[in-house]
Amino acid sequence: MSRRVVGVLGGMGPEATILLQQRVLAMVRATDDADHLPLLIDMNPQVPSRIAHLIDGSGPDPAPVLAEMAQRLEAAGATALAMPCNTAHHYAPQIKVAVSIPFLNMVDLAVARAADCLAPGAAIGLLASPAVRLAGVFDAALSRAGLNAIWPSDMDRMLAAIRSIKARGPTPKAQDILAAAAAEMAQGGASLLCVACSEFSLLAPGLPAPVPIIDTIDALADAIHLHSQMKQS
Amino acid sequence: MSRRVVGVLGGMGPEATILLQQRVLAMVRATDDADHLPLLIDMNPQVPSRIAHLIDGSGPDPAPVLAEMAQRLEAAGATALAMPCNTAHHYAPQIKVAVSIPFLNMVDLAVARAADCLAPGAAIGLLASPAVRLAGVFDAALSRAGLNAIWPSDMDRMLAAIRSIKARGPTPKAQDILAAAAAEMAQGGASLLCVACSEFSLLAPGLPAPVPIIDTIDALADAIHLHSQMKQS
Repeated sequence: MSRRVVGVLGGMGPEATILLQQRVLAMVRATDDADHLPLLIDMNPQVPSRIAHLIDGSGPDPAPVLAEMAQRLEAAGATALAMPCNTAHHYAPQIKVAVSIPFLNMVDLAVARAADCLAPGAAIGLLASPAVRLAGVFDAALSRAGLNAIWPSDMDRMLAAIRSIKARGPTPKAQDILAAAAAEMAQGGASLLCVACSEFSLLAPGLPAPVPIIDTIDALADAIHLHSQMKQS
Repeated sequence: MSRRVVGVLGGMGPEATILLQQRVLAMVRATDDADHLPLLIDMNPQVPSRIAHLIDGSGPDPAPVLAEMAQRLEAAGATALAMPCNTAHHYAPQIKVAVSIPFLNMVDLAVARAADCLAPGAAIGLLASPAVRLAGVFDAALSRAGLNAIWPSDMDRMLAAIRSIKARGPTPKAQDILAAAAAEMAQGGASLLCVACSEFSLLAPGLPAPVPIIDTIDALADAIHLHSQMKQS
């Protein structure tokens, strides 16, 4: 395969995978199909639940399934990998060791983008699932960047909002939960908010923003764009 | 791979491929990710232009690229294939012979659906590209079903609308062109209209409908749904 094609570990959930495609599409100035970026998407909604494994402590480990998806995408010609699910980035190390192509790490990319516009020691507010917090998905990247994390006080409500979006799409109630968490974290000292749950990315464009907001999925879309523009090695 | 996964020959254009995913998603009653259908999507906007090959007589034949995509999807575990691009169905025979898994033919599926609700000899109005007409993409299926085709009188305008949607998304001007063609064909004797261009599918939900309208992409989404529900053989 001569083209550079980014492989997508998708389906976690399907809406987030569609959203990533839309963000990638929107970022290209196209006059015809051929201007758009190639993707190879494994839309696999049957990856074992990350929340069940990390929070409930029930159900199988998703890591072997994710590693196998990554290998299959590499074998099918992907020249880099992307995964539009923040929680699943807990399993990034197991994915990386399974393949020989770059893994465009959405968490690292978003934190680097935040660090670019914040002073060392600043706090970033994370709109994320309890699983992301409990598993420490952002800890290492934030520590490397010298940034601190602020979390919503009621993580159960965040989980309820995520489950509601997965079942019923982006509802006004979910939007209210997200807006309240954003306001609370800004008041609590966050210099910047980071949308770190792809379900929340569906609602982020309409979110009232007391401080700047970045979205992990946009950081990933940018990296896909950059990768596709690079010369074939 | 134990799951039944439909492989998608996509990127013609990317919006149509996203639209198919949205239609497949909307058709599932889901309470969590795992309820959704698995897809393996080759989003390849670099497939040689079907319009250039069929109408302009310039540029390379897309068939070998499509056959190779189909083989790669089969090798990666797809148990059936789908292609959300009506024009590209001109190359369906070359795709089918390249693989040993079923090809869910969007054209055949849509014509069968139309035939279910029309008397023999009835006319169906096709909202499609000139390439679909010139290449006779619907001819065999319509003939088998005993149905006649009616086409918009100004096919150049249809092509202009498609090119405009590919470049700028679904604009009011494209919507007007589509609505005028729909009204004209209904007046000219079409008992039913068939949206047979995935760019037009983006606009179809808002189309004023003088007669019933079916959409090829919905027929394909239904077939994907059915295939995914079948027991693994």
